[in-house]
Amino acid sequence: MVKSVNVAIIGSGVVGSAFISQLKGLKLPIEFKVVYLARSSKEALFSSNYDAVDLNSYKTASAQKILGLDELNKFLKAANKPTILVDNTSNTSISEYYPEFIKNGISIATPNKKAFSSDLTLWKKIFESSSQPGGGLVYHEATVGAGLPIIGPLNDLVTTGDKIEKIEGIFSGTLSYIFNQFSTPEKPIKKFSDIVKVAKDLGYTEPDPRDDLNGLDVARKVTILARLAGLELESPQSFPVESLIPKPLESVSSADEYLSRLPEFDSDIQNRKDVAFSKSKVLRFVGQVDLKSKKASVEIGEYSFDHPFASLKGSDNVISIKTERYPNPLIIQGAGAGAEVTAHGVLADTIKIAERIAQ
Amino acid sequence: MVKSVNVAIIGSGVVGSAFISQLKGLKLPIEFKVVYLARSSKEALFSSNYDAVDLNSYKTASAQKILGLDELNKFLKAANKPTILVDNTSNTSISEYYPEFIKNGISIATPNKKAFSSDLTLWKKIFESSSQPGGGLVYHEATVGAGLPIIGPLNDLVTTGDKIEKIEGIFSGTLSYIFNQFSTPEKPIKKFSDIVKVAKDLGYTEPDPRDDLNGLDVARKVTILARLAGLELESPQSFPVESLIPKPLESVSSADEYLSRLPEFDSDIQNRKDVAFSKSKVLRFVGQVDLKSKKASVEIGEYSFDHPFASLKGSDNVISIKTERYPNPLIIQGAGAGAEVTAHGVLADTIKIAERIAQ
Repeated sequence: MVKSVNVAIIGSGVVGSAFISQLKGLKLPIEFKVVYLARSSKEALFSSNYDAVDLNSYKTASAQKILGLDELNKFLKAANKPTILVDNTSNTSISEYYPEFIKNGISIATPNKKAFSSDLTLWKKIFESSSQPGGGLVYHEATVGAGLPIIGPLNDLVTTGDKIEKIEGIFSGTLSYIFNQFSTPEKPIKKFSDIVKVAKDLGYTEPDPRDDLNGLDVARKVTILARLAGLELESPQSFPVESLIPKPLESVSSADEYLSRLPEFDSDIQNRKDVAFSKSKVLRFVGQVDLKSKKASVEIGEYSFDHPFASLKGSDNVISIKTERYPNPLIIQGAGAGAEVTAHGVLADTIKIAERIAQ
Repeated sequence: MVKSVNVAIIGSGVVGSAFISQLKGLKLPIEFKVVYLARSSKEALFSSNYDAVDLNSYKTASAQKILGLDELNKFLKAANKPTILVDNTSNTSISEYYPEFIKNGISIATPNKKAFSSDLTLWKKIFESSSQPGGGLVYHEATVGAGLPIIGPLNDLVTTGDKIEKIEGIFSGTLSYIFNQFSTPEKPIKKFSDIVKVAKDLGYTEPDPRDDLNGLDVARKVTILARLAGLELESPQSFPVESLIPKPLESVSSADEYLSRLPEFDSDIQNRKDVAFSKSKVLRFVGQVDLKSKKASVEIGEYSFDHPFASLKGSDNVISIKTERYPNPLIIQGAGAGAEVTAHGVLADTIKIAERIAQ
């Protein structure tokens, strides 16, 4: 008899729809029965007798009002089947509700960083609920570096007793692109402000680029990695994070005004770049966790021309994990953003959970 | 109630003893009950009532004659418990017996390359047995790159529907060391033959370095990766493998004679290095799988100074996986040999199996 799991999917945006498309293509001896699909923040597909949602017509099929989180929790629990909740949103309320799902035995697969990078109390509630008898499993590979194998391998190292010494990496595709363009072992002349504008035009930044350049997204990823490695950071605000937004432009009201005034500040960062270049180094925007000094940081760092971070291409992410067993660090590099790779990370997690719980 | 699995361990050499040491340190809510430990090719620890072997005294405890494979299979099956066989040997006979264990529901975790890189028929028997109802699971992360996350992530990509286009990498720690020393973006003058001698003195090579330099170990790893990616290579002899042993030295009887005559052939490889250097490239000994042309190869390749393969350090391995989702390849790099990292790879697999089957 083929084993089966119930799946509830929240979100059908760029990542969500890529996830659904990849899920449809699976050829595995496990049935993934989608019993709930919230295709927007208002509408969901489901039926009281848990019929499988047709993934070929979910965009147009007639839908109902979404279930509230309490209702959804009860609905999934009442099916009395192994269940995976796939949260393809970045919604804070949903992530704060994870412990309730998990206590009910519902497992979570998600790229939603909020759950794992907000207050430490939420992190603890999530993993303590999961460790209770009957608690659901929690997989979140795609919260750092999208589909890159980072969270799983880091957990493997910790679980098998390795000592993590230092984690260092470029965790923002946007800032990877900007610095890879701006500071290279060659010496092209590109202004920082021009590169930010091009990045925005290419859709690499948030609508307001300051939401990338404030460093907070990187700080969230550093928070997650630090906690996995054993350093219990209170929040992404509890350690130094360098903002790339010039002070006077933090408070200007529009992205347009920010972009139009950014050239005024080009010389500051240009000077830093030139100083680094004179030492045969490039600038990179890097998140770090030092387990020995128990410190984390997000800031511009300098790296020699032959360092792996210096030869990074496009908007790739990279992570370097130095441990007792890997004194020459373990390095993982590749696309760290994008719908397909994020969805692949979430789906691989969904499969791993299903392999553990399907009946 | 704590879940539990039976574990049978074959081998307590360098990898085996590191595995046992790491296993002892685990802090997981699963009991790993070692019911059989073959500490050599002759002696094993076990008891007819499946008492747990004491991992603190296994080296000195009084032992019995090892069980033959048929006997061991029956012994493990008769316990009627979820069971993992950890094969920490590179023994061919044991690997050829895997399908029998798997048919009996016994799962396998192993760094033993032989099972996965010999004739395609054995590969098929292993995975077909595993896919039958009641078949054991098979995890073999440490067969390529030791503990580096390669097999798992590659399987994840394939399972979730990505199209693998090209796999390329440096899969031998020995040959990584030799070429990293020999051919660099700088221009130190080191003779190939001297580097081989130093590598042997440091214990980086097999007792006879020709067992590394013939390329067959790399060919085995390429065979495994190709098969996982969907190219069913018949054997490691079924595609072109460049040997680094000068023809006239293939048949000399001793490693010493080989080493003493190797300087006669330095100029050949020195010329190749100089030609590459004149194009700003280095030489690396690389395994490749091209899924488009359905071809595999093992040979010396030339890589630009700014290519990730050129900046490899020490005896690190590196793999580059180019796919539809990762047109800029996914790159994984780090120590690809050594007892601790190999044992960690095997133990992480053992845990993943236990999480799926423990009761």
